[in-house]
Amino acid sequence: MKSDKISFINYNKDICTFKKDVSIDQCLENSQFEGHIWIDIDSTDNKTIVDKIATCFSFHPLMIDNIQNPKQRPKYEDFEHQIFIFLKLITLNNELESLETENISIVFDSKVVITFQGNVEGDVFEEVRKKINTTKNKVRKSNTDFLVYELLEATVESYFKIIEQLGEKIEVLETTIMSRPDSAALRKIYRLKRSMMFLRKTIWPMREILNNLLRSDNDLVCETSKIYLRDVYEHCTQLLDHIEIHREMLAGLLDIYLSSISYRMNAVMKVLTIISTIFIPLTFITSIYGMNFEFMPELKWQFGYTMVWGVVVAITIGMLYYFKKKRWF
Amino acid sequence: MKSDKISFINYNKDICTFKKDVSIDQCLENSQFEGHIWIDIDSTDNKTIVDKIATCFSFHPLMIDNIQNPKQRPKYEDFEHQIFIFLKLITLNNELESLETENISIVFDSKVVITFQGNVEGDVFEEVRKKINTTKNKVRKSNTDFLVYELLEATVESYFKIIEQLGEKIEVLETTIMSRPDSAALRKIYRLKRSMMFLRKTIWPMREILNNLLRSDNDLVCETSKIYLRDVYEHCTQLLDHIEIHREMLAGLLDIYLSSISYRMNAVMKVLTIISTIFIPLTFITSIYGMNFEFMPELKWQFGYTMVWGVVVAITIGMLYYFKKKRWF
Amino acid sequence: MKSDKISFINYNKDICTFKKDVSIDQCLENSQFEGHIWIDIDSTDNKTIVDKIATCFSFHPLMIDNIQNPKQRPKYEDFEHQIFIFLKLITLNNELESLETENISIVFDSKVVITFQGNVEGDVFEEVRKKINTTKNKVRKSNTDFLVYELLEATVESYFKIIEQLGEKIEVLETTIMSRPDSAALRKIYRLKRSMMFLRKTIWPMREILNNLLRSDNDLVCETSKIYLRDVYEHCTQLLDHIEIHREMLAGLLDIYLSSISYRMNAVMKVLTIISTIFIPLTFITSIYGMNFEFMPELKWQFGYTMVWGVVVAITIGMLYYFKKKRWF
Amino acid sequence: MKSDKISFINYNKDICTFKKDVSIDQCLENSQFEGHIWIDIDSTDNKTIVDKIATCFSFHPLMIDNIQNPKQRPKYEDFEHQIFIFLKLITLNNELESLETENISIVFDSKVVITFQGNVEGDVFEEVRKKINTTKNKVRKSNTDFLVYELLEATVESYFKIIEQLGEKIEVLETTIMSRPDSAALRKIYRLKRSMMFLRKTIWPMREILNNLLRSDNDLVCETSKIYLRDVYEHCTQLLDHIEIHREMLAGLLDIYLSSISYRMNAVMKVLTIISTIFIPLTFITSIYGMNFEFMPELKWQFGYTMVWGVVVAITIGMLYYFKKKRWF
Amino acid sequence: MKSDKISFINYNKDICTFKKDVSIDQCLENSQFEGHIWIDIDSTDNKTIVDKIATCFSFHPLMIDNIQNPKQRPKYEDFEHQIFIFLKLITLNNELESLETENISIVFDSKVVITFQGNVEGDVFEEVRKKINTTKNKVRKSNTDFLVYELLEATVESYFKIIEQLGEKIEVLETTIMSRPDSAALRKIYRLKRSMMFLRKTIWPMREILNNLLRSDNDLVCETSKIYLRDVYEHCTQLLDHIEIHREMLAGLLDIYLSSISYRMNAVMKVLTIISTIFIPLTFITSIYGMNFEFMPELKWQFGYTMVWGVVVAITIGMLYYFKKKRWF
Repeated sequence: MKSDKISFINYNKDICTFKKDVSIDQCLENSQFEGHIWIDIDSTDNKTIVDKIATCFSFHPLMIDNIQNPKQRPKYEDFEHQIFIFLKLITLNNELESLETENISIVFDSKVVITFQGNVEGDVFEEVRKKINTTKNKVRKSNTDFLVYELLEATVESYFKIIEQLGEKIEVLETTIMSRPDSAALRKIYRLKRSMMFLRKTIWPMREILNNLLRSDNDLVCETSKIYLRDVYEHCTQLLDHIEIHREMLAGLLDIYLSSISYRMNAVMKVLTIISTIFIPLTFITSIYGMNFEFMPELKWQFGYTMVWGVVVAITIGMLYYFKKKRWF
Repeated sequence: MKSDKISFINYNKDICTFKKDVSIDQCLENSQFEGHIWIDIDSTDNKTIVDKIATCFSFHPLMIDNIQNPKQRPKYEDFEHQIFIFLKLITLNNELESLETENISIVFDSKVVITFQGNVEGDVFEEVRKKINTTKNKVRKSNTDFLVYELLEATVESYFKIIEQLGEKIEVLETTIMSRPDSAALRKIYRLKRSMMFLRKTIWPMREILNNLLRSDNDLVCETSKIYLRDVYEHCTQLLDHIEIHREMLAGLLDIYLSSISYRMNAVMKVLTIISTIFIPLTFITSIYGMNFEFMPELKWQFGYTMVWGVVVAITIGMLYYFKKKRWF
Repeated sequence: MKSDKISFINYNKDICTFKKDVSIDQCLENSQFEGHIWIDIDSTDNKTIVDKIATCFSFHPLMIDNIQNPKQRPKYEDFEHQIFIFLKLITLNNELESLETENISIVFDSKVVITFQGNVEGDVFEEVRKKINTTKNKVRKSNTDFLVYELLEATVESYFKIIEQLGEKIEVLETTIMSRPDSAALRKIYRLKRSMMFLRKTIWPMREILNNLLRSDNDLVCETSKIYLRDVYEHCTQLLDHIEIHREMLAGLLDIYLSSISYRMNAVMKVLTIISTIFIPLTFITSIYGMNFEFMPELKWQFGYTMVWGVVVAITIGMLYYFKKKRWF
Repeated sequence: MKSDKISFINYNKDICTFKKDVSIDQCLENSQFEGHIWIDIDSTDNKTIVDKIATCFSFHPLMIDNIQNPKQRPKYEDFEHQIFIFLKLITLNNELESLETENISIVFDSKVVITFQGNVEGDVFEEVRKKINTTKNKVRKSNTDFLVYELLEATVESYFKIIEQLGEKIEVLETTIMSRPDSAALRKIYRLKRSMMFLRKTIWPMREILNNLLRSDNDLVCETSKIYLRDVYEHCTQLLDHIEIHREMLAGLLDIYLSSISYRMNAVMKVLTIISTIFIPLTFITSIYGMNFEFMPELKWQFGYTMVWGVVVAITIGMLYYFKKKRWF
Repeated sequence: MKSDKISFINYNKDICTFKKDVSIDQCLENSQFEGHIWIDIDSTDNKTIVDKIATCFSFHPLMIDNIQNPKQRPKYEDFEHQIFIFLKLITLNNELESLETENISIVFDSKVVITFQGNVEGDVFEEVRKKINTTKNKVRKSNTDFLVYELLEATVESYFKIIEQLGEKIEVLETTIMSRPDSAALRKIYRLKRSMMFLRKTIWPMREILNNLLRSDNDLVCETSKIYLRDVYEHCTQLLDHIEIHREMLAGLLDIYLSSISYRMNAVMKVLTIISTIFIPLTFITSIYGMNFEFMPELKWQFGYTMVWGVVVAITIGMLYYFKKKRWF
């Protein structure tokens, strides 16, 4: 039987069995394991797998629908004997400078944690697997809710990395806009703003989920884990703070961009005005003596030409003095 | 007897009778049906029908007023033995690029669901009728509140489609504004913004209605249905998130539009300034030697003309170098 | 004895006595009426009347102060045996395009409703009087709280009319700004914005009043009336929605106004730049051959003049091609 | 013994003793007064006075600190046997067009009200003193909490006057900006905005204080006084409404200012463009016939000069027609 | 044994022992002290110290993690027998005009207060140490929670100083922008805005911490201290008020900056337009009589030249009058 990209971990404080690429039937057949079980399924498209698991662990029909047609925003649903959490994992596509999301569904009861992922490249849960392998780690000694905490913490940690990367992009953009604003900067501001909106939309309900877990009176979430979950909750709040500050910084950068365009337009206009204001009157004077009237006494005057040059120099100096006084340059 | 565009469905987990274009009297005469009944009335203008139904099912006078003069925003009213829900259905008129609304009133008690629609073209409830026809569907086995859930879900689903269509329009607009902003784009932004405001105004109270249903302690809404209703509630929240993001994107597009106008003005000004700054001084120089003074030594100088050309070329090169250094082109 | 513009209505489900322009003493002397009484006083300036009524019905001193010095925003005060409501009635002065307010105080106990109005032109309560005259109307069969409901509903209905009128003004303004924005439009936006702010300031506390009535555990407000009051509450919410949308539309119109000024400036600048960029270089060329150097070989060349025209035409075509390519026209 | 600018009022419903400029010891020595006492101290700098009073009435150390180092925002503190209120009094310095504040601390128990003021010029509490002098006034018959109400009401009343004055300044500014905006107007907008922010910062916590008093279950605040305090609370809400509207009006004025600068720039540009667009081509034409080519047939043509004038007139009329059609003037 | 920059204070109302630069072991070995102990550790990098203390006082693992990897925003955690507070200390780097933060962790139980600092230069807690040394100070007579209050108060006091300094910078910037706006001002606005955002982000959760302490029902925080903590809470609110006002002032300054650029551009444009509008027509006139047509009757007219000067003067005066009337200068 072909394996379905399913990994299976059976652990308690003494043992830790890790099977990769097992088939769904292998996971389910020997359900008399001691300790806790984490079944990680890498594809939600495979209807058979989801159905088998759903039947085996008696999922609520709405939950199955949510796993298979994951249109929703991050969501928390308490079905008493099971808790369902739906998350969005975000990855930054550096080439396209856009954010990509992936759906993660977590279902857990007192014994089993089942996670459904899309096709994740860099697996954010790798770190959690390592922790389970470590004998002394608290996750080994705790209930399933602590494993869920570790999964949530890993997800939130991955958000931190993305916000850090976006923060660096903003820093670079800041330097660009301060020194040499161009129209590409504007588009970058717009794109970063969109990313921030997107992140906020994802993290905000994530915090709600954690709040629901913290306030839950379901036995599946014990008091000792809640202290840890509160920590993740605080991290979400911190993320939202960061996003808010980044958004305001982007708004500030837009202001700087717009006003520096105005400022440069002002500079261009000054150059035009200085040149025009000096030379247009001068050209008028010379054009006077370019007229062909028969009776123009100055033309015959010996110092006429010299006088014109004198006037030209005087006007030029006068204008420059005027602009200097007006602090135009 | 003329039929009144009334459809009548009588269903329970075993049977499903569907009568189209029955008269209102036919609906009401045999009220000893087993199972649940859904009466769908396509016109609220017909005072007779509404009055007959109101009398038959003893509607509250305010409810009758709300059905016949539907000025209100989406509304929920619990009359203990009946629950009244007033909705807005939104359709996108693609030609006029405007949103059109239609009023839907839903009244239900433990046995009967009555819906009053305006003259809907594409019926959003068609999907629900199909579900009732399917023997195994949960709606067949459940109470009236589940049918109401299906109706609400169908409505919210239709909002999703509209927001998706508007989202596509925004994407197109984004491309237009990024490449070639014109004054038509501005009007499109304004119109899309209006649509978003309108949608928010409609969906916000819709969410309140769902919240009221979720918190209701009326027996008409049972706990099992509430899980499903919470799902619709989440969908409404998601819609509002989408609207908020679209609104911010439109605001961002407006910024880009405005700043690209400034940017292009800047470009135009630079062309004017470069041309003027080069040629106005040059014209002054040539106008000098266009003067008709008798005593102008340069005019008789053999290399005078060559010298003028030299000065012209020197000034031109100097100016171009200056603009290059200032990065004007 | 001179009458004081006081109208007096005594009604119950059987009788309805309506006396106009009675004196205040006539109203008060025979207080052994059966049924309910509505005393409507058209002037709050007349200290004597207010004092007499206040004494007769033992008003709280603060209430008297509020009626006579109505500085306040709409207000609700529950004095156990009496409920005091202070409202603002708004009328639209079409000539001055400004909103005018009038104060209305309503005091009611289980038997009497007393209303104090300023000098209202078009009486918004006329409609209510007609309803009392109608034998079958619910107001005849109900307690004083239902009459108060009718008065509040009539007030809120009058707000709807004003917002509708302002909405039409905005529609007209929209067309104007889309086609031909001028500085008058800007002032209209500002004035409409002010009106919207003013309306919001009035309707917001109005909603609070209704909320207070809905939550009141005073016996004066019975449960059956609360369903109707909730309807008025919803109408207030709807009004606030409308105001919010109108405000955002006005903000959108301002954006369009500002950007269309920029857009037209851009157009003006392009004309200037095209003309200058074509003719300034041409004038330079002709001014070259306007110089009076003795040694200028081209001047004696037979085809010199033709050549100049050739250059002129070539430059003009080249420039026009450049502008065309840059899509300046 | 030198008096310390302390005024002392002993009152109940029968008597009213008013002593001005008494020493602090005189106030405190005969503490067996009947009725209520109001001690008003005009200086908080005098550490001795505050310490004496603090010792005599056993103030909480934090309260003494708050009185002597009044860095705080308006504040309310309930010490069970005493209630401490810290207020800001605002005066408008008309010359500098800035707001000035003064600190007022009010401490009261069931028998004594002590007020600490800075060096107030126009005393806002004068009105309250007059009321105490009036035999029939409610304050004479009531407990200390009613005197505190009167003090708070007097303070809020003084805010109303300031907002009215600022409102008038805004009206004047509105007229100025509508007719002739200059850069001074901009500064005035900025300064008024600052004043509004400052007022909001002061009145907002003032409302919180009143809310605390209203919700207090301390016996020092009785139910009858609460009705009056609610009235002051409503006044604060009204003040905040006014401030909000003024702020939005100032924002609107800024928009008008900015767009009228754009509008006038547009007008200036049009004049420049019209003049340039007419005369630059004309000058080109005349410069053609200013060239000195030997072979220029038109120069010898008898009607050459007339023709040039014809072309000049034709171009001028054409251009003017074009601008007219484009509605440039 | 090398000392670890640890200071140790043992105090009660009678004694006060202060040891500087003790080793961690010295601190912990004699734990049978009477009175209260404050251990201040200047470095959180030294894992050994933190671990020793954590073991000795049985810290929660999450608390150790928070002390050693202080990524978090200010945070409060109640572990029943211990309370953990995490703070940010802010210092203003005047050269770089940027804010720098430092992490402070406070852990306290009924007997011991332990503070972990980064490498603070100017110690904000110096003031607190002095207070402990003062025999009569309340901190000597109180429990550990009062010492914690003093530490929090010292921190908040240091925020006040920073906001004051930033406020002064804004005042200076205001004067600059009012008189002579340049592009450096824009950057200063942006930087100050960022600092304000940063401060808000730090102080907001600080206020939450205080709120948590105030609402705590842990015996470690007694009622008498809560009055003082409420004072710190109010100070935080005041700080947030200040920040909000500063932010709005900066937004106002940006408006002034932008509009003064527009205003100056307007002034520049006017100079250009006046000069061009006067001289371009004049040059046209003179260029008319610079044409070389054989048949130009005016050229031979004796007063031709005089007439041209007359027209020149007339046009100049006319134009100047026009501009004067339009109030262009």
